[in-house]
Amino acid sequence: MVNIAVLGHGVVGSGVVEVIDTNYGHIAKNLGQAINIKRILDLREFDVPYSYKFTKDFDDILNDDEISIVVEVMGGINPAYDFAKKALSRKKSVVTSNKELVAAKGAELLKIAKENNVNFYFEASVGGGIPIIMPMHSCLAANVIDEVAGILNGTTNYILTKMIRENMSFEDALKLAQHLGYAERNPSADVDGHDACRKICILASLAYGKHIYPENVYTQGITDISLEDVEYADNCGCVVKLIGRTKKLSNESGDILCMVSPAFISNQSQLGVIDDVFNGIMVRGNATGDVVFYGKGAGKLPTASAVVGDVIAAAKRFKTTESLTWEDDGKNHVVDYKTTSVPFYVRCKGENAESIICEIFDDIEFLSRKNKPDNEQAFITAELLESDFDSKIEKLSQKGIEVINYIRVLNY
Amino acid sequence: MVNIAVLGHGVVGSGVVEVIDTNYGHIAKNLGQAINIKRILDLREFDVPYSYKFTKDFDDILNDDEISIVVEVMGGINPAYDFAKKALSRKKSVVTSNKELVAAKGAELLKIAKENNVNFYFEASVGGGIPIIMPMHSCLAANVIDEVAGILNGTTNYILTKMIRENMSFEDALKLAQHLGYAERNPSADVDGHDACRKICILASLAYGKHIYPENVYTQGITDISLEDVEYADNCGCVVKLIGRTKKLSNESGDILCMVSPAFISNQSQLGVIDDVFNGIMVRGNATGDVVFYGKGAGKLPTASAVVGDVIAAAKRFKTTESLTWEDDGKNHVVDYKTTSVPFYVRCKGENAESIICEIFDDIEFLSRKNKPDNEQAFITAELLESDFDSKIEKLSQKGIEVINYIRVLNY
Repeated sequence: MVNIAVLGHGVVGSGVVEVIDTNYGHIAKNLGQAINIKRILDLREFDVPYSYKFTKDFDDILNDDEISIVVEVMGGINPAYDFAKKALSRKKSVVTSNKELVAAKGAELLKIAKENNVNFYFEASVGGGIPIIMPMHSCLAANVIDEVAGILNGTTNYILTKMIRENMSFEDALKLAQHLGYAERNPSADVDGHDACRKICILASLAYGKHIYPENVYTQGITDISLEDVEYADNCGCVVKLIGRTKKLSNESGDILCMVSPAFISNQSQLGVIDDVFNGIMVRGNATGDVVFYGKGAGKLPTASAVVGDVIAAAKRFKTTESLTWEDDGKNHVVDYKTTSVPFYVRCKGENAESIICEIFDDIEFLSRKNKPDNEQAFITAELLESDFDSKIEKLSQKGIEVINYIRVLNY
Repeated sequence: MVNIAVLGHGVVGSGVVEVIDTNYGHIAKNLGQAINIKRILDLREFDVPYSYKFTKDFDDILNDDEISIVVEVMGGINPAYDFAKKALSRKKSVVTSNKELVAAKGAELLKIAKENNVNFYFEASVGGGIPIIMPMHSCLAANVIDEVAGILNGTTNYILTKMIRENMSFEDALKLAQHLGYAERNPSADVDGHDACRKICILASLAYGKHIYPENVYTQGITDISLEDVEYADNCGCVVKLIGRTKKLSNESGDILCMVSPAFISNQSQLGVIDDVFNGIMVRGNATGDVVFYGKGAGKLPTASAVVGDVIAAAKRFKTTESLTWEDDGKNHVVDYKTTSVPFYVRCKGENAESIICEIFDDIEFLSRKNKPDNEQAFITAELLESDFDSKIEKLSQKGIEVINYIRVLNY
């Protein structure tokens, strides 16, 4: 029997209890022994049949030598970071769903795990129930990872899907998402892209072996996306999606591009067809080509099932440590995104917009939409250095054209 | 340094050499040590810089105690089966891409591996470069797998895509696939569904823990699919795909449905958008819901990269054995598909077809296509027990209606 402790009895924590309870026999057969949740840490009181397992004191778990695996599903950096460090130092493997913790402290916790010959696993921190961390690290181990791009946040994907499919405004779609429990009352972490940013940082760190910090990653959310943008996207066979992406640059530095922004992508592509609260992640390996992983990126049971999958893996690898790791060498390996190139979609308005646009931009494609006002223009540019694009946008403004929005066009 | 041997220097075997060579440093960093291909077994002569590694005698590999991992990429049952057994018995882990071998002898080879405390891995046997075996076994370990369905054969998917997108006949699309090297000169293993059958058997065995044998699995290929069927599919928002599927039945027996057949599926679904030589596999877990894996299902480097991923995993788990396993209990766990239910698409012709169809079938939806002959009818039935459907089709014939084709309608 493997004894574990669960830190936090919120949505994911109670889901972990439920998954282990529901699939008890199945898991025991797979693992060769049963999993027993010995203690649960939560400061709140719960009226559940297993309330005798609760403690408010982390030391009850830390000092219990029978507990070999600690599941951290509290969220936030503190006290999760402190608890994880202490558990690893006491030679307990740690499994977490906490993307904030992994994005901020992953390198350090992986190092402590290795020093103590235990494992630090975090499959649930990216893509919820979708297997991605382990497949990337293990099944694709023979590949140099050239690029990763994904729809990493279910809340924003739900909102964008409502805008695209039902012509709902951003505000109404957000309200609906909040009503359905997909979005928090304060939706900033989702709609401003921070959640997606943490996830792409974890994937980038895993792909490149260096800790990529969220503060170095340009992050733009979806609050400026309007129904007009969605209509113009449709006009060129695209949909607007919030894309987190990272790409190895071909130069000597080994530096990477890493950013989060809305993007036009083809509505026929493997990422373009991912709707509602689903997530999808494309990994491009130098031998295997594109591989896409798709599924529920959040939710109680999908996330809990990824956590329990990690618990099973940690139990199987008792007293061994996996080589899954990345270093924090104190440097920023993310290039200034202004030095990278991409085509843009631009929406603007003003007198003589069409001829002014043609003066400033070469090789553009104008778009159309139903009831387009005469003084509104939308177009797709050729691939441009981001800094050059900024100058051109500045020139448009100088000539009296109001730039309403612009969105990157990506080829995923 | 890990010394390995490669049995077979065909497409996959030479790909294994290429992947290990190209990504040598990357792999060594991940694994913590380099991989050295010490010997290659092939009866043919090759003019390559590493020709000194070749042998024609398997004993040179078997008796070399420095070789800890044997890669079997010869294909076919014999002598691959004999070589794999011998290698495992000599405590060498075996990695294979050979679906025929795994589908026929998986349970036995897994058992021998376990007895010898080594590993038998076969990630490349299903889905080529797509991670599926390990994610299903490990990341989704906390789930009871309710269902697996997939586009498992790239050749047939390429042919169907050409029929759907370019209105090409089956015969022309097959010729093109042969010309491009996607199909063999004798295309039976692909177009008759046998390749997809072996793959769904491997996935079913993994999901249910019992060896599922190809000979117990009803298998229908795509040779009867016509452009008319493709047009009618389009009329109801569907595409025709060759689907391998397995599903746990809700009865007490623990028996499963397992079959391969063409199917109408929605052209907007995660499997419906998978085109060309790509494969996609949907796994439905009782906690995580639907997870889909997508990528190149065949080809030299994708397949080789999955093989080398397994080599890395086997090297990491030296002298330990994974619990990945299934049993052969001598029973057939696949139910008679005639006792299962599904809606059907039917195409037929004859005088008064419409009224005769309505007499025999309840609750049907008629379909249309451009230039539909007056005496031709196509329709989708309600969900019907397969044996009941057979009786109804028989009644149609008795009333003078010629049934040209029928295809299952699936909800993936």
